[in-house]
Amino acid sequence: MQRKILVIGAGKSTSYLLDYFLGKARSENLYLTVGDLNPNTVPKAISEHPLCKVILLDIFNESERKKAIKASDIVVSMLPAQFHLKVAKDCIVYKKHLVTASYVSPEIKVLENKVKESGLVFMNEIGLDPGIDHMSAMQVIDGIREKGGKIVLFESFTGGLVAPESDHNLWNYKFTWNPRNVVIAGQGGTAKFIQEGTYKYIPYHKLFRRTEFFEIEGYGKFEGYANRDSLNYREAYGLQDALTIYRGTMRRVGFSKAWNMFVELGMTDDSYTVENSEHMSYREFVNLFLPYSRTDSVELKLRHYLKIDQDDIMWEKLKELDLFDDTKIINLKNATPAQILQKILEDSWTLKPNEKDMIVMYHKFGYEINGKKKQIDSNTVVIGKDRVHTAMSKTVGLPVAIATLLILNGKITAPGVQIPISKEIYEPILSELKNYGIRFKEFEVPYLGYDPDSVTG
Amino acid sequence: MQRKILVIGAGKSTSYLLDYFLGKARSENLYLTVGDLNPNTVPKAISEHPLCKVILLDIFNESERKKAIKASDIVVSMLPAQFHLKVAKDCIVYKKHLVTASYVSPEIKVLENKVKESGLVFMNEIGLDPGIDHMSAMQVIDGIREKGGKIVLFESFTGGLVAPESDHNLWNYKFTWNPRNVVIAGQGGTAKFIQEGTYKYIPYHKLFRRTEFFEIEGYGKFEGYANRDSLNYREAYGLQDALTIYRGTMRRVGFSKAWNMFVELGMTDDSYTVENSEHMSYREFVNLFLPYSRTDSVELKLRHYLKIDQDDIMWEKLKELDLFDDTKIINLKNATPAQILQKILEDSWTLKPNEKDMIVMYHKFGYEINGKKKQIDSNTVVIGKDRVHTAMSKTVGLPVAIATLLILNGKITAPGVQIPISKEIYEPILSELKNYGIRFKEFEVPYLGYDPDSVTG
Repeated sequence: MQRKILVIGAGKSTSYLLDYFLGKARSENLYLTVGDLNPNTVPKAISEHPLCKVILLDIFNESERKKAIKASDIVVSMLPAQFHLKVAKDCIVYKKHLVTASYVSPEIKVLENKVKESGLVFMNEIGLDPGIDHMSAMQVIDGIREKGGKIVLFESFTGGLVAPESDHNLWNYKFTWNPRNVVIAGQGGTAKFIQEGTYKYIPYHKLFRRTEFFEIEGYGKFEGYANRDSLNYREAYGLQDALTIYRGTMRRVGFSKAWNMFVELGMTDDSYTVENSEHMSYREFVNLFLPYSRTDSVELKLRHYLKIDQDDIMWEKLKELDLFDDTKIINLKNATPAQILQKILEDSWTLKPNEKDMIVMYHKFGYEINGKKKQIDSNTVVIGKDRVHTAMSKTVGLPVAIATLLILNGKITAPGVQIPISKEIYEPILSELKNYGIRFKEFEVPYLGYDPDSVTG
Repeated sequence: MQRKILVIGAGKSTSYLLDYFLGKARSENLYLTVGDLNPNTVPKAISEHPLCKVILLDIFNESERKKAIKASDIVVSMLPAQFHLKVAKDCIVYKKHLVTASYVSPEIKVLENKVKESGLVFMNEIGLDPGIDHMSAMQVIDGIREKGGKIVLFESFTGGLVAPESDHNLWNYKFTWNPRNVVIAGQGGTAKFIQEGTYKYIPYHKLFRRTEFFEIEGYGKFEGYANRDSLNYREAYGLQDALTIYRGTMRRVGFSKAWNMFVELGMTDDSYTVENSEHMSYREFVNLFLPYSRTDSVELKLRHYLKIDQDDIMWEKLKELDLFDDTKIINLKNATPAQILQKILEDSWTLKPNEKDMIVMYHKFGYEINGKKKQIDSNTVVIGKDRVHTAMSKTVGLPVAIATLLILNGKITAPGVQIPISKEIYEPILSELKNYGIRFKEFEVPYLGYDPDSVTG
């Protein structure tokens, strides 16, 4: 019998997702319906495929939405996270499985009992980060536990970066995903983590100055700054005894220190709009955040304020962005500083059609076994093909697609609001991801935790 | 006929307020009712006065509240700002005037038409800041306008400080009002002001590094950091043509730079609670905000993080607070960093019974007249008597009391939701305040605005 998959939202992240389904449509007897607000933006290779139809779908149109969900066997929601709830409620009414790449929100979590009673699988956090990070980490953690080891340290970093062959600017960075999320990164709340049993808190304005460094063979050095939510993973991964839990975001070395200049100036603030932003030049924007002077230049005021020598690479990084240009105009009405900064950065940091992105993920696992401390490092690097077939859309879309098919085929069966941390889920998905070139390298290394001599109680 | 005044809330700020009413009770034929949740805390000199009664009043008890308001001729609400609305609505129902020292909230502003229709005066912002600042500034501004001058610059700073004779610590600061407001000062949003026609925005983490300095004859040097809301005063004071509008908070020189250490560390954050705060030592609290190290001391980590030399006075300021003490325990459950910092500071910064506080207010007015730039500086300094009869309670309570009597006596009559910026209001109040030693000195000085050569269009 033909199985009907409904994919809601056909944005950037769905190229690999849709290709995966259509590639398996005949052998797996699938029929794909893609619902989007702008059906015309879906490529012809997809919309004209005989086992696919693309429909106009506005999720705020209740009858349209319910009709599409009712007609499917499983629903994949690639909508922004805040829109999943309506879809999820309909999935309960019509008894459909649901797959999303988003964090489980409290509103979705509340549905747990109903989902379980209906025998449905609501699989969430099954993209890259969250997603591949959960699965690749839990596979190593479970392996250590099976051997009788106890996890004492877990660190994990992920970065969406530009591939080395397309890396042409002083920041070693280009936007490969939603630029807005990059500009406001870290503003969701104080970063919290635990190092050698001690809680640590980093306020936003210091976040980009408290980086850690690591090297990935063949790709050189990277740095990482802390994510807000490291402690959330303690429960989910069963790491109650771990003395160190730290999750972060990866960048090329030097990015964070330079980014911190924007933070210090106040340019990443998204909480108020700037007066007269529309007709302001980039230079005037910079001057908003500097003291008034009748005589001193914007350049000198900024260098003095941030204590930058004139031969410092930090200074060159700012100049590269045309930040002091008085002819470039912002052209955004009632914009926040963060929106204006995004616009300025997009001038310089947008991928060209043939440029490639790169996903880097890096885990460190410290553990004790037979009274000895050991460490496993693992990492994966995925390079994109071009600006459309990005490593980001591949690493987000493929696990979603694979999980969907596994649920349809009865290989993932545990009902409830799930995240991919059990073997039943991560093993077949990680195995299939290898067929698409997404594989982790593992290294047994000497224990290099923060305190190699400490012994847990 | 006897006039009945109801004062709701008999907290710290009301000693001078109640004394003023009772001092005039016989000559002005007043009867005072003081309603408070803790009537026993009201001093006997007040509660046993023949023209006063103190009652238990819980403003959430609707019938109690309505009964008390109905029985009065005018209501003074000294409650925290968020509780005025219930009182205000009853005042409309029972046609009573209302006086508060709080900022006009949007909820109160909405009542404007009803208040006007009923011919009532709702006088707000009639304490120190807001209050005396409005009145003393508008008196000078109106004077300049009457002579044909045009205001081009207005700066205004107020500080609640410790009097010189009680100033014994390295911070030159003690709490003389609500300590919580001091700890979270500046967190309400980005500071906005205008200097020589250019908008300026200062993010919280730079607020205490962008101070201005001034000297007050006989009292030495002070510094000021920007308040959030300088631009709000443009409309109210009719300063649409002013090129510089800047309002701020005054401290002794060096306070803000030292305070910024707490901001940089993240200790003023009030948005999350610290794990296990109750049994933590002051030293452990500090270490929460510093990188983990197996060997380095908290002291060295902090000095390195904040780039403080060991012979820097900044370092002595921190030590003076016992911040590195591992025997002093926080003793607060589930506390935020801001709450913990407040507790630590209260150990050192609480006024002793005979110590005195000091209020300092300083205005600068730049104006153009007959093509020439001129400047008037004005200031007042008020010293408290002791820890109860503070300069703060005097400067907040007296204008409230004076305004109340003026309304009762038909000297302030303009109906509506008012703030004290018109001559009818500020002249009699400022005049009466002089009788209590609160008077402004004015100085004609050379124009010293940010740009003495600029000419307005």
